[in-house]
Amino acid sequence: MIRVVAKNFIKPEKTGEAEPLFRELVAETQKEEGCIEYRLFVIPGQPGLYVYVEEWEDRAALDRHTKSAHYTRIVPQTRAMAEKPGEIMIMEEFR
Amino acid sequence: MIRVVAKNFIKPEKTGEAEPLFRELVAETQKEEGCIEYRLFVIPGQPGLYVYVEEWEDRAALDRHTKSAHYTRIVPQTRAMAEKPGEIMIMEEFR
Repeated sequence: MIRVVAKNFIKPEKTGEAEPLFRELVAETQKEEGCIEYRLFVIPGQPGLYVYVEEWEDRAALDRHTKSAHYTRIVPQTRAMAEKPGEIMIMEEFR
Repeated sequence: MIRVVAKNFIKPEKTGEAEPLFRELVAETQKEEGCIEYRLFVIPGQPGLYVYVEEWEDRAALDRHTKSAHYTRIVPQTRAMAEKPGEIMIMEEFR
């Protein structure tokens, strides 16, 4: 099992354009095999910051996700709306 | 419902001392009322970084957690082992 936390920094003037794409990405990704959790969060007072919290059965499932039709169609669009590169943590559970 | 992601940066020479405390904090916190998820993660190749992924029924449950006997006993100890202040995100689900 692996856990991902991924921050996206969208330009304030692009949030209205990015949000329907984020919703679509969440809905499509939740249907993927090997996806345990895929949800998107925001922080009050920090417009433009969108944080994915994800859990995948294994690394292969995450790799399939990043090659999926919805990911490869949507993510380049939202990346183009970012004011700086995203930050991602790919984590294992501490035992 | 609120979601928390909290990074702890422990001095490399203190990880052996911090880890039993982290395990105890996780075990005790998972018993708390209003705690939906409370798990700890690490990143291969980043020793000293410990990331809590949390979900709470509401802000009141999170506030009770930070006043609990186990939190107020353990967290000051692990903070004293940190090489820099932790980073916390308190988030709401994007709709």
